[in-house]
Amino acid sequence: MTVPAHPVPPGGTLGILGGGQLGRMLAMAASRLGIRTHIYCPEEDAPARQVAAAFTCASYEDESALTAFAQTAGAISYEFENVPVSAVRSLARLTAVHPHPDILALAQDRLAEKQLARQLGFGTAPFAAIDGPQDIAAALAATGLPAILKTRRMGYDGKGQRAVRTESDCARAFEDLGRVPTLLEGYVTFVAEISVIAARGRDGTCHVFDPAENIHENHILRRTLAPARMDAAVTGRAQDMARAILQSLNYVGVIGVEMFLTQSNTLLINELAPRVHNSGHWTLEACEVSQFEQHVRAVCGWPLGPALRHSDAVMVNLLGTEADDWQALASEGGALHLYGKAEAKEGRKMGHITRLYPLGQRP
Amino acid sequence: MTVPAHPVPPGGTLGILGGGQLGRMLAMAASRLGIRTHIYCPEEDAPARQVAAAFTCASYEDESALTAFAQTAGAISYEFENVPVSAVRSLARLTAVHPHPDILALAQDRLAEKQLARQLGFGTAPFAAIDGPQDIAAALAATGLPAILKTRRMGYDGKGQRAVRTESDCARAFEDLGRVPTLLEGYVTFVAEISVIAARGRDGTCHVFDPAENIHENHILRRTLAPARMDAAVTGRAQDMARAILQSLNYVGVIGVEMFLTQSNTLLINELAPRVHNSGHWTLEACEVSQFEQHVRAVCGWPLGPALRHSDAVMVNLLGTEADDWQALASEGGALHLYGKAEAKEGRKMGHITRLYPLGQRP
Repeated sequence: MTVPAHPVPPGGTLGILGGGQLGRMLAMAASRLGIRTHIYCPEEDAPARQVAAAFTCASYEDESALTAFAQTAGAISYEFENVPVSAVRSLARLTAVHPHPDILALAQDRLAEKQLARQLGFGTAPFAAIDGPQDIAAALAATGLPAILKTRRMGYDGKGQRAVRTESDCARAFEDLGRVPTLLEGYVTFVAEISVIAARGRDGTCHVFDPAENIHENHILRRTLAPARMDAAVTGRAQDMARAILQSLNYVGVIGVEMFLTQSNTLLINELAPRVHNSGHWTLEACEVSQFEQHVRAVCGWPLGPALRHSDAVMVNLLGTEADDWQALASEGGALHLYGKAEAKEGRKMGHITRLYPLGQRP
Repeated sequence: MTVPAHPVPPGGTLGILGGGQLGRMLAMAASRLGIRTHIYCPEEDAPARQVAAAFTCASYEDESALTAFAQTAGAISYEFENVPVSAVRSLARLTAVHPHPDILALAQDRLAEKQLARQLGFGTAPFAAIDGPQDIAAALAATGLPAILKTRRMGYDGKGQRAVRTESDCARAFEDLGRVPTLLEGYVTFVAEISVIAARGRDGTCHVFDPAENIHENHILRRTLAPARMDAAVTGRAQDMARAILQSLNYVGVIGVEMFLTQSNTLLINELAPRVHNSGHWTLEACEVSQFEQHVRAVCGWPLGPALRHSDAVMVNLLGTEADDWQALASEGGALHLYGKAEAKEGRKMGHITRLYPLGQRP
């Protein structure tokens, strides 16, 4: 990367690839610092557009639109990990892009993610790659049954996965997922799913938020409790693991690290999200500097803010039609967030509510 | 007003007259609820423009621009009290406008404000109107000396005022202020300047934030402490006074009520601001629902949020060139807000920082 490393000052522009709710909340956080945002995404009706200073509607393959976009922005980031790496590499030749395109490529590949975790000495669920029917038997031997077959790329919220109970299930699932490169993962018995939201600045400083505990329903995040219910030693270990990942990647920005906590207090790495994360929304109200502002600070070359949590919090996602009765939701107390999405498809994240509690007093 | 009273739903548009930092923070608060904002102001380079879904640059006398603006908005409000009442009356014939234009007219007139306070049985500094030289002697008899002569209209941050120590000072000040209608105010000896930020919904529900204490320098707000340092009985009385003002005016929206606290624990009404208020910025971090969101909820016909404060707070304004060293400010901790203003004129409000403390533990 030959681009200059000077920070984006107040009045400068941060470019964001992707116009969903994460881009929207990034734009709002940038606004607090006096930084303008330019949203780039292929959808006209993008939630982030409503709160941004500039908007480009173009495909991620449109090189001339990407070039024009890069010329307006002192730094560029992305709000989701399924943005094409090629687009991010093009932009990185023109301006500062964080996290680095190589990190995006890694995070798009479930196998590379797991291999990184192992290289750092961290546990994961047992896994094995399946690139064709010939790999199935060995993979099943590695993971045992039952297992889950996942596409290596482009999965989210339970999409691109199949449960595997028998060897023939596995062959069928591989066909079903389109014969693309997949990863077979063994089941782990966990007592909690947790996530650690952590940030690393351009200067290498790390700030790690308190680990949070996530409750999923139908593979979609339903509720996050901050902090996670686990003892201080495990909390410290989870934060150290996130820090080690950031340092090993020379990472700039916020990362979401999903982990499983087992009965024996072991932490296993599940997934990395090279971006702000749904399970960090509670930081908007429970910390002076949120994950969104932390990401803006990091990618724009600002000093990170303190990641201190002043309250306990419970974040509940509003899915599909759950946000339709916004008047009742607005009456219930808590911090209500609605993302400005026109259509409430089933399971679609339409908003969330965060409730705060004094430290140690979450019910 | 013959306009319909239905609320502005998520996805709907709130129009805001004025594009400064208050409009900007209103727009950001509306965004949290999924409400779009349309900013109307005569300045091209308006801080609120950068975070709004739509922007109209036109004069407040431009009837056709006002009409077009009203047609886009399910409700309209304003971010400062010096917007021409005529513009607000025009808009109120076309859509829901809150607070009501009559309230804006009242708040633009220091005499009417003081008279309202007296009608409600509240104390004020001694005052008398001076519309011409013939009124000076009687006015001085009413207020005593020293006193302050203020223009009845269009004053803010110490502008449009003169200190008066002698009778001839008064005549000179009246000339100096341009022979416009003025109000002579006697000095009051106070132990604290406090402000109460309160909201009233369309349904008549009131929510009153905890009174805050303000420290001014050169007539400009420098620091706000929340809560104000005063006992519970006085706090309750201050909140009751704000509530009485809201109810008497059939008010919809947020009001800022400035008061003096005297040595004998008497509260005197100083000024009313028919809008969100600089001394309420601390609510952004210290409450689940801020003054800005509360105002949006009220004027858009939503239920009000709880006005509960979960932390103590100190808000410090960043004036003139104080925000130039944003990297140092960003390193200091606290919630940093920069307003996206291009030029740092002396005394201009460029941003603020709010620091939170556990309840009862503010230093």
